[in-house]
Amino acid sequence: MVCKKILLDEKDIPKKWYNLAADLPTPLLPALGPDGSPLEPKMLEKVFPKNLIEQEMSTKRWIDIPEEILEILYRWRPAPLRRAVYLEQHLKTPARIYYKDESVSPAGSHKPNTAVAQAWYNKKFGIKKLTTETGAGQWGCALAFACNLIGLECKVYMVRISFDQKPLRKIMMQVWNAKCVASPSNETNAGREILSKMPDTPGSLGIAISEAIEEAVADKSGATRYSLGSVLNHVLLHQTIIGLEAKKQLAMVGVKKPDVIIGCVGGGSNFAGLAFPFLYDKIHGAKIKIIPVEPTACPTLTRGPFAYDFGDTAGMTPLLPMFTLGHGFIPEPIHAGGLRYHGMAPLVSQAIMDGLVEPRAYDQLKCYASAMLWLKTEGTLPAPETTHAIACAIDEALKAKKEGKKKVILFNYSGHGLMDLAGYAKFLSGGLSDYYLPEEDLKKSLEAIKNFPKPAKFKRG
Amino acid sequence: MVCKKILLDEKDIPKKWYNLAADLPTPLLPALGPDGSPLEPKMLEKVFPKNLIEQEMSTKRWIDIPEEILEILYRWRPAPLRRAVYLEQHLKTPARIYYKDESVSPAGSHKPNTAVAQAWYNKKFGIKKLTTETGAGQWGCALAFACNLIGLECKVYMVRISFDQKPLRKIMMQVWNAKCVASPSNETNAGREILSKMPDTPGSLGIAISEAIEEAVADKSGATRYSLGSVLNHVLLHQTIIGLEAKKQLAMVGVKKPDVIIGCVGGGSNFAGLAFPFLYDKIHGAKIKIIPVEPTACPTLTRGPFAYDFGDTAGMTPLLPMFTLGHGFIPEPIHAGGLRYHGMAPLVSQAIMDGLVEPRAYDQLKCYASAMLWLKTEGTLPAPETTHAIACAIDEALKAKKEGKKKVILFNYSGHGLMDLAGYAKFLSGGLSDYYLPEEDLKKSLEAIKNFPKPAKFKRG
Repeated sequence: MVCKKILLDEKDIPKKWYNLAADLPTPLLPALGPDGSPLEPKMLEKVFPKNLIEQEMSTKRWIDIPEEILEILYRWRPAPLRRAVYLEQHLKTPARIYYKDESVSPAGSHKPNTAVAQAWYNKKFGIKKLTTETGAGQWGCALAFACNLIGLECKVYMVRISFDQKPLRKIMMQVWNAKCVASPSNETNAGREILSKMPDTPGSLGIAISEAIEEAVADKSGATRYSLGSVLNHVLLHQTIIGLEAKKQLAMVGVKKPDVIIGCVGGGSNFAGLAFPFLYDKIHGAKIKIIPVEPTACPTLTRGPFAYDFGDTAGMTPLLPMFTLGHGFIPEPIHAGGLRYHGMAPLVSQAIMDGLVEPRAYDQLKCYASAMLWLKTEGTLPAPETTHAIACAIDEALKAKKEGKKKVILFNYSGHGLMDLAGYAKFLSGGLSDYYLPEEDLKKSLEAIKNFPKPAKFKRG
Repeated sequence: MVCKKILLDEKDIPKKWYNLAADLPTPLLPALGPDGSPLEPKMLEKVFPKNLIEQEMSTKRWIDIPEEILEILYRWRPAPLRRAVYLEQHLKTPARIYYKDESVSPAGSHKPNTAVAQAWYNKKFGIKKLTTETGAGQWGCALAFACNLIGLECKVYMVRISFDQKPLRKIMMQVWNAKCVASPSNETNAGREILSKMPDTPGSLGIAISEAIEEAVADKSGATRYSLGSVLNHVLLHQTIIGLEAKKQLAMVGVKKPDVIIGCVGGGSNFAGLAFPFLYDKIHGAKIKIIPVEPTACPTLTRGPFAYDFGDTAGMTPLLPMFTLGHGFIPEPIHAGGLRYHGMAPLVSQAIMDGLVEPRAYDQLKCYASAMLWLKTEGTLPAPETTHAIACAIDEALKAKKEGKKKVILFNYSGHGLMDLAGYAKFLSGGLSDYYLPEEDLKKSLEAIKNFPKPAKFKRG
């Protein structure tokens, strides 16, 4: 009998996170402060707790996962590694397709892996309250879930248009005891200023980040900090438990290394979580093709330059060395809301610069069509973001068939689509289309960063 | 370390279903045909395929699960048995609380266990299309999922008010390739007749059943059959895989038998699935308290008589020997939609008559409050139906604390609440209340069955 679920015992859960910063052939470039010189850790202390800033700056290869964090992760981890045998049979491919099922977390995606860790470190540092922003709501739900278990207040600024259009995610945050407000709100200077100028604005992730940071920094008691769900080094670090588990699980079925690894990318965290532990092997000589998949509607990796840019739209963050479409770039409202980000995690960006991973862009319609095949064979409903990884896994399985090669393909099933049925309905009724970013528009949005410091000028490491 | 997830290997999945009809101290009374005499199997052949009618009538103790059905169930089975250690710690109870997690199925509940089996037997019998009804949509989704994998057409009549109010479940059926129409519809005589008299009716489960059966029976080619998601013997049989797995999993952590078993009840199938394999032990001398929990708003077991009644509102089914509130009883629109059923599975009903299980009724508000504690400790979002089992498990754990007894409590986590957030929002905003059925209303609804044959008149077995 072919084993379809490879389950790891709780006692075998990884006890350390893997930090790619220790092994990147070209060390990470520094983030830059407002004056354009490398950022001092101290400058982040009003925004993040010191213990997380240390992790953000660390180049230590292995970082212990505190037992108390594992104790929370056990609620759903180790996550199953599954084999998509029914899809394989349908494709008549000699390839084996494995996927790490991160949809089993209570919030429905990989996001709680870092939400729990961040909430725990903040609590340990004496923080009482976390603020954050959320677009479609996945991240806000994950942080609400973590704060509710750990005993922190949680305040989520949710982009107004999502707040109005996606009431379910908002209720999810509420059942986990978080306060969720529409952004722009009347609760911050940034929010009030924007509302006075544009009372009918649908809001944006950039505005919501500004509000969340402002509330954290404005707390004179020092008991509030801000939390981010992707992009940063420590966030990606927390996600590496995904790949570390997958390695052990593949070993259980006799796979020494996968041939192809795939993950969808928005800010980069689910992709990094699965891929980074295998990147270690690749850096040390293993032959593995590693593919981050982005939407053609937001082609950060496939069409953006590697440059210094802000992480948010409003320009409140340090300048980060990354692939970017320009911080003012507003992606089309595709249904894979989690992939609508103008930039990319610096660690992922540097891995691309070093030739270790090979990004690829997929159309929305192709991704939904792949989801329909998945529903017909494996049976489950993937998140619109996840369909990008599925579409690529299918392509790679068909390529293996053409080549007659028994490849092992591994991808990250980053979340379920139960809260994303509206997009499916639109696809089924023929109401969706593809979108390609016109060259002119890209040029225009990159104008905004043309005078920023250039990565080449900074010493690496 | 306390083990929180007890995982069964795929190779150890139960290979047979357990049929309680073989062991009930008092054999089941027969269902009755329109003329009031015991039903002949032949009379069901236009509605169900012969192989399932055989199962419905069988008194064989063990029935083989075909390998092809297991091959489909492996997509999510064996389901995890989990231990609610965080809830235990919060309650400071010496009891151990285990729960079988049926929310992990692709449709989000225990329903696919029988949907897959029914679809498979129908396909084997040469049937091309299944019709069914659905209220809130759980069952319709499960059957859509199963038919899509097995290759059957699926037509779901969804109660109009749910069709309009719960678009997500409707879309879920569509992504699994089912046709979902609002009932009453223009596609059947029953539907047209009702629409001509009451064009604005919100519909009812009774009407939807009538339409689904009519479409199945009306297909002159004989290629269409009807499928029911609870109540019937073969449906409960298919669910016993839940309890059979749980037995093996408890043995893995050294538990010979649980002291208390709990499940919520609407038609009875998730409760029966967990409890029946343990009822076998109880019948053979084991001391186990077995509690089906129903809502006070629909108190079938705690206030209804054991009587012959129709399974549907319109009176199209045979008369079944069961606890009932009268087939015309329309329960209040509580959010646990799956528990809004006037009757109860005959097998569960007979087990109550034989003193083997002890039903209990819980208020809606108490159940939601229990869910909030669950969210704060275990972290996951239960279906409103499931909250009834959780509320009872908490009560039993607190009782064990009072008694100072290290009891083992086992309940069925029948489904997740991700599609039921509207009820939670109403609870959080204080918009929910409890409802007790007035004595007068109960009397009135029981009027309708006063002249039906009485169970006492029929020879048992």
